[in-house]
Amino acid sequence: MEIPSKILENAVDALSTLPGVGKRSALRYALHLLKEQDGDYAAFIGALTSLKRDSHYCSRCHCISDTPVCPICSSAKRNQKIVCVVENIQEVMAIENTGQYQGVYHVLGGVISPLDGVGINDLTIAQLVRRVGDEGVEEVILALPTTMEGDTTNIYIDRQLRQYPELKVTTIARGIAIGDNLEYADEVTLGRSIVNRVPFR
Amino acid sequence: MEIPSKILENAVDALSTLPGVGKRSALRYALHLLKEQDGDYAAFIGALTSLKRDSHYCSRCHCISDTPVCPICSSAKRNQKIVCVVENIQEVMAIENTGQYQGVYHVLGGVISPLDGVGINDLTIAQLVRRVGDEGVEEVILALPTTMEGDTTNIYIDRQLRQYPELKVTTIARGIAIGDNLEYADEVTLGRSIVNRVPFR
Repeated sequence: MEIPSKILENAVDALSTLPGVGKRSALRYALHLLKEQDGDYAAFIGALTSLKRDSHYCSRCHCISDTPVCPICSSAKRNQKIVCVVENIQEVMAIENTGQYQGVYHVLGGVISPLDGVGINDLTIAQLVRRVGDEGVEEVILALPTTMEGDTTNIYIDRQLRQYPELKVTTIARGIAIGDNLEYADEVTLGRSIVNRVPFR
Repeated sequence: MEIPSKILENAVDALSTLPGVGKRSALRYALHLLKEQDGDYAAFIGALTSLKRDSHYCSRCHCISDTPVCPICSSAKRNQKIVCVVENIQEVMAIENTGQYQGVYHVLGGVISPLDGVGINDLTIAQLVRRVGDEGVEEVILALPTTMEGDTTNIYIDRQLRQYPELKVTTIARGIAIGDNLEYADEVTLGRSIVNRVPFR
């Protein structure tokens, strides 16, 4: 499909860098934007410009935050001695959504992935290790994805944390999802749910 | 799902105005943009800013164009006496993609839709009627969507064009798509494909 304007094509190319957006969707977005009123368009561009320019990160947990220390890290209701290590902001939001967690977070900003050019220094691992020492953290919960990269990152972090012999390092439970049928579960998950079984009462 | 930053939330709200984009996708886009390098981010914003600021429309067919008159309207190879009336730029691209059409276009910019606040003066109908007279157009092909709004617009345009008794007004053939099974075709389409049958040889 040939786009009849270079300017439109540039906008389509830009929009199709968004994750999961193909040329056709990008074209639909661009033509929608073209039809917007000037004021709405300016607001759209303004919000996206501000996103990069004005966003701040919490100096403790590295989650996105409008204040120097985020509301979770500065809350007296949260247990500051338990730190859940996650890859990105999405996971913080997902865990917060459950309403089940009373500790705080540490956002790594990714996982170790040499193929994608993500090294140890691109992540906030050193900050985590320092934080555990400085704040007397009692438990670190590893909640990274179960991929090779996630596992590598878990192992690396665990090794760095060995310097604190009192520290408890845990990982979130993997098992059969509530409501899922055992028959269709993958063997690795089912196997792990058997090995890591919990007392019934 | 609560977003931990007002700035991020504004960006998510802006992105979710795009057609078919929900909050979750918008969040995914926003977090992807946040991770972009500064240069890539500036290019993204630049392309979208330029889209509205620098886009021009062909003065004859009202299709988006980087030149005052678009390549199709200024091509000596195209039959300038046959004008295909379409709703938007997407339809121009779709018809061009077939390689079957040698005439030119007229982009209305929408269809008459009082509920959406789109009236006759928001569309380029007056320009079409003038163009037909000025350029001695011989055939107008109506290729608007088969919705109530599209039909209304067809009828309105046809009435305006009655002032040119020599002008041929046609509409694109509706019928069973190539490869489709008659059994599963909707009755209106199948009915119309019987009524509008064409000579086999």
